[in-house]
Amino acid sequence: MQLPLFYEALVAEKDSLFSLSNETQKHAIQVLRLKEKDAILLTNGEGLICKAIITSIDKKQTIVQIDSYERINLFEHKTCIGISLLKNPSRFEWFLEKATELGISTIIPIICKRTEKQHFRYERMKTILVSAMLQSKQAWLPELKEPILFSNVLEEHNYDLKLLAHCNNSERKFLNNFKINQNTILLIGPEGDFSEEEILLAEKNNYISVSLGNNRLRTETAGVAAAVMLKLNN
Amino acid sequence: MQLPLFYEALVAEKDSLFSLSNETQKHAIQVLRLKEKDAILLTNGEGLICKAIITSIDKKQTIVQIDSYERINLFEHKTCIGISLLKNPSRFEWFLEKATELGISTIIPIICKRTEKQHFRYERMKTILVSAMLQSKQAWLPELKEPILFSNVLEEHNYDLKLLAHCNNSERKFLNNFKINQNTILLIGPEGDFSEEEILLAEKNNYISVSLGNNRLRTETAGVAAAVMLKLNN
Repeated sequence: MQLPLFYEALVAEKDSLFSLSNETQKHAIQVLRLKEKDAILLTNGEGLICKAIITSIDKKQTIVQIDSYERINLFEHKTCIGISLLKNPSRFEWFLEKATELGISTIIPIICKRTEKQHFRYERMKTILVSAMLQSKQAWLPELKEPILFSNVLEEHNYDLKLLAHCNNSERKFLNNFKINQNTILLIGPEGDFSEEEILLAEKNNYISVSLGNNRLRTETAGVAAAVMLKLNN
Repeated sequence: MQLPLFYEALVAEKDSLFSLSNETQKHAIQVLRLKEKDAILLTNGEGLICKAIITSIDKKQTIVQIDSYERINLFEHKTCIGISLLKNPSRFEWFLEKATELGISTIIPIICKRTEKQHFRYERMKTILVSAMLQSKQAWLPELKEPILFSNVLEEHNYDLKLLAHCNNSERKFLNNFKINQNTILLIGPEGDFSEEEILLAEKNNYISVSLGNNRLRTETAGVAAAVMLKLNN
């Protein structure tokens, strides 16, 4: 895909003419200096990629004509990472970018007993996902949930395999030994790890304790390492 | 290890008394407010961890008495990542931090045909490695080389398995299918990837072309994903 790719949540196969959002118009026309008759790609972040031709440009709006479609299927199983918010938001943003590049399907920011920071700027985080998706030329935008309490994430029902990564000395299986052949959710705790009570509560809720290896990793590093392993075995 | 861990390149088993470096002294005494008789851990970044007791504190120097030793062996094979410098240094620094946490043994910044940035602040990068080593409670500091030209990295002789990660459509084996049971070097290119000529040159020098998966990853993401896979199969 050599054509520039843009995110348009509302673009749909049926459309023949489509008016670009302000953001796309600004980037395509003012930054990239695209002209009428130039071709671009649009994705709705849900597997649809449209090739479109710019038909008219004016200050108010830029109209493109949808030329052809491609549907990218998500053949793999759903992979969800629930991860504690971090005191340093840029570390959390790094995780979001990398998880998107690696193709994780759902991200749930969680608030644990030892989570230090609970403020979360949803719109800013969303834009990080979008640019990571575009930069890595993907057509699927990970679903980003609003932060929820640890006890509530345990009630997520859409996953068949439920994993809890922690450094507690209890018996843990190595994540990389799991074949991810079903919808899977994996939880990662804050700096300082999950509390004993949280680990017990998760295990009561059919979560399996897993290890990410011998090294002691920062939360966002654990998140990226887990994303790599989940995708490797998917 | 609950005691605070500090880096002292010069600490050695034979020492009974040791004078802390200014940096360690500042952190231990001014930041952590440690007092005489408090215990700390010192590592030389080469597998040695010493438990030491603070015996005297004054403005000029802080003296500790080495109490006991532990030697952490690197039983695994050497893993080296040669990776292009990046236009955005914070992305390169992020890679250095994560590669250290994950336990990569050697990092070689490389300058390729399409490398955009060639400036490299060695001392700053070294401090990032040190704090990542301490933060992840490790006793081995990765060896950080000065940046070298791509053609020169091909002459590194210390590795039995030589891998080149790129996105070119030529035939590539999946990195995760390699058993890393020998000293291994893996090269990762800049944004825009290695040039055709660089790929051919590497293959002439017994490098095997590998893939890191189906997704198109940023250079630093590729570096971290590769680090995870190298350690998983080590």
